Amino acid sequence: MIISTIASHSSLQILLGAKDEVFRTRLYVKPERKAFYASTRLADELVVTEDMGAILEDEGIVIPHGSFVAYLGLEGIERAKAKFFGNRRFLKWETTFELQDKALDGAGIPRIRVIEPDEVEPEKLYFVRLEGPRGGSGHFIARGEELDEKLGELKEPHRIEEFIPGVYLYVHFFYSPILGRLELLGVDERVVIADGNARWPVKPLPYTIAGNVGVALRESLLPRLYDYGLAFVEAMKKLEPPGIIGPFALHFAYDGSFRAIGFASRIDGGSNALHWYGRLYWNEPMSVGRRIAREIRLAIDEDRLGEVVT
Amino acid sequence: MIISTIASHSSLQILLGAKDEVFRTRLYVKPERKAFYASTRLADELVVTEDMGAILEDEGIVIPHGSFVAYLGLEGIERAKAKFFGNRRFLKWETTFELQDKALDGAGIPRIRVIEPDEVEPEKLYFVRLEGPRGGSGHFIARGEELDEKLGELKEPHRIEEFIPGVYLYVHFFYSPILGRLELLGVDERVVIADGNARWPVKPLPYTIAGNVGVALRESLLPRLYDYGLAFVEAMKKLEPPGIIGPFALHFAYDGSFRAIGFASRIDGGSNALHWYGRLYWNEPMSVGRRIAREIRLAIDEDRLGEVVT
Amino acid sequence: MIISTIASHSSLQILLGAKDEVFRTRLYVKPERKAFYASTRLADELVVTEDMGAILEDEGIVIPHGSFVAYLGLEGIERAKAKFFGNRRFLKWETTFELQDKALDGAGIPRIRVIEPDEVEPEKLYFVRLEGPRGGSGHFIARGEELDEKLGELKEPHRIEEFIPGVYLYVHFFYSPILGRLELLGVDERVVIADGNARWPVKPLPYTIAGNVGVALRESLLPRLYDYGLAFVEAMKKLEPPGIIGPFALHFAYDGSFRAIGFASRIDGGSNALHWYGRLYWNEPMSVGRRIAREIRLAIDEDRLGEVVT
Repeated sequence: MIISTIASHSSLQILLGAKDEVFRTRLYVKPERKAFYASTRLADELVVTEDMGAILEDEGIVIPHGSFVAYLGLEGIERAKAKFFGNRRFLKWETTFELQDKALDGAGIPRIRVIEPDEVEPEKLYFVRLEGPRGGSGHFIARGEELDEKLGELKEPHRIEEFIPGVYLYVHFFYSPILGRLELLGVDERVVIADGNARWPVKPLPYTIAGNVGVALRESLLPRLYDYGLAFVEAMKKLEPPGIIGPFALHFAYDGSFRAIGFASRIDGGSNALHWYGRLYWNEPMSVGRRIAREIRLAIDEDRLGEVVT
Repeated sequence: MIISTIASHSSLQILLGAKDEVFRTRLYVKPERKAFYASTRLADELVVTEDMGAILEDEGIVIPHGSFVAYLGLEGIERAKAKFFGNRRFLKWETTFELQDKALDGAGIPRIRVIEPDEVEPEKLYFVRLEGPRGGSGHFIARGEELDEKLGELKEPHRIEEFIPGVYLYVHFFYSPILGRLELLGVDERVVIADGNARWPVKPLPYTIAGNVGVALRESLLPRLYDYGLAFVEAMKKLEPPGIIGPFALHFAYDGSFRAIGFASRIDGGSNALHWYGRLYWNEPMSVGRRIAREIRLAIDEDRLGEVVT
Repeated sequence: MIISTIASHSSLQILLGAKDEVFRTRLYVKPERKAFYASTRLADELVVTEDMGAILEDEGIVIPHGSFVAYLGLEGIERAKAKFFGNRRFLKWETTFELQDKALDGAGIPRIRVIEPDEVEPEKLYFVRLEGPRGGSGHFIARGEELDEKLGELKEPHRIEEFIPGVYLYVHFFYSPILGRLELLGVDERVVIADGNARWPVKPLPYTIAGNVGVALRESLLPRLYDYGLAFVEAMKKLEPPGIIGPFALHFAYDGSFRAIGFASRIDGGSNALHWYGRLYWNEPMSVGRRIAREIRLAIDEDRLGEVVT
């Protein structure tokens, strides 16, 4: 059995996990990225091509990640012949405000307040979020009085949200149909360009993500987040049967209480950061990438592979 | 032998360490937190109850952590029949300014300057600290001219301290009576809500802790911190015989020199962050939680359990 | 075979790696630092002395790190009888602006713009960097209009650079002559005193490094950084034959594009932070310190030790 993915986003973690679970691995990589990926031991087979669409006909088990929709399009993925790990119809749920809100509301998870243009106050700070997963790029903070001008230039679909000054936490879950269990595998903070203001407050800076750092959460916050995870899994069972299979992440602003700002309907890039919560469930280190491979291994062993691929 | 604790603060780490050292484990958990803890493999026995006081009659070895005093009270702990790991009379030393200062002064560790009301200058920034361990909640920064108004509203015991702009570092120690050795097992930074100002300086934000991130300290700073640790252990031998048994943490502001801002007289929540310093002493990963279980294991093997429980 | 170094900077990591690869270890330590280092299991032999120069006659393999030039001087190192791991003539390349620029330009790596005094604009922010590796101490940010006064007081060699508000990333490489391979082993952010402004923007604070935190980089950034690493290795082969042997680090400002701000021509202190990229190349955890010992082990096994020591 071979595990296949595209060289980007969280492919290193996915392949490393696959190797740890003793799968063969195949990686689709663009020529200009080949040197790095070829230097590692992770890909048994390297398919060097400009056309990432080739993976849609792969004969192994394809693991989607945060670059798939950008590379292949939702339609391409939904119609592909290849076997995908997870519920491939869940992937679209992170791509629009409408679906995001529907999922979070369905789960009863408090979410950030959306501001209507006529509610804007001149002196207040607002967060303008562009639609879809974008690695933070394009989002910005502005005072109400600046919004008209800044939004005038903006072509992409977007919305105005309340700005919550506080900590932003990204919580990585894995729902296992094989074990019938939700696992909370890690928490990260994004390292964004705007963090440059930490050392010298300069000016509005981009929210583009450069990396991630693992955070050990204050333990008393974990049970609540786990309950949100459970509710999200339940909601998606109804909204997109058979529901979630495998990894997802909930994204929160925290200023003393949690407000969801979005989610990832696949492995989240923030799970690249080191974390130890995997050992809460497993007697060895367990990244989200490895957890995917472990689920496939468990499914194969019980002859239930059909329950984890679509 | 069974290791018991309360589901909060650093219980995940304590139980994971106990499992790694092949102990049975028991966890007292409130009903609303059960789902998360029950999802993990860490507790062999889950006591679901609203009354955390039940642990005071536990027949295993109880590992206290940062939520014990809040749940059980100092008196309850000191009079309990249960066996506690560590010197249970040391627990109170973090709970008042008076005891904290006495301990730090006894060890000769430089500490943050306390400001008398008549020293306050209008334009300067001060840090107002509430008494006892509070996870940062309630502390605030204010200019001298704002203090009168802000302190007027404040009911809890507190004091005014100089504000040191710089890095705040939390250093995790373990003193082993069995090995006669002090180990420096990790360093963390707190992730607090006020860090939100890193991306956009907004306004005074709460210092409530949301999580912790491990820090690899500049190596040249470690010998000095280790000497502070040794001095603290020596001081507590005199101040609260038989002195420290097991984990404690020293908390510092660092702006080029160290000033203690407090300490934890038990396992510190910041040790939940990943760190590798445990391998300085052990040929395998060693969290503070696991180190506790290891000490119990070593004590049992040498028939010296009485030296590490009280 | 014994591995020797000086107690400072990254010696813990170097010795821990040597132990993991089953070498004997020797550590030169000043008396005031002895307590800490002696508490660990890392040094089989502790040479307690005020004179770090003693290591220049050591009979093992000496691993240089970021404190060597400060303790021993470049000339002392270049003329020493002892065997040094790596190309000891490479060490000087980080010590002056001239050599740094020559190396980066030779590799075609974009670097930060140097500002001539007559280009300074009064309202703009600039970064004043002192020459040589200094752990960040002495560097400062200032507006153009403040520069004359602030530079008047400055005795050390320095230069004015553009100030890039953004993320600062330190990328840890290892070039193996034995395997003919460049490995990207980790990325860190510095924890500096100036980070204190994250919680309350106060005033210009020192850029002195207090510690390091590992960062999982956004995966799409890695291939480009790896290419920079390859180009740097190629450039140094011509500039300082036989070129780089072992560890080095490239330092970048990132605001959406990368600009080099310098490099370390030896193991970088930031590699003390935990990272998992070592597993991209090795089926076990691999710090830069351990990687050095592994290279020596591989060289000994193939009777090629002469290719990795000078």
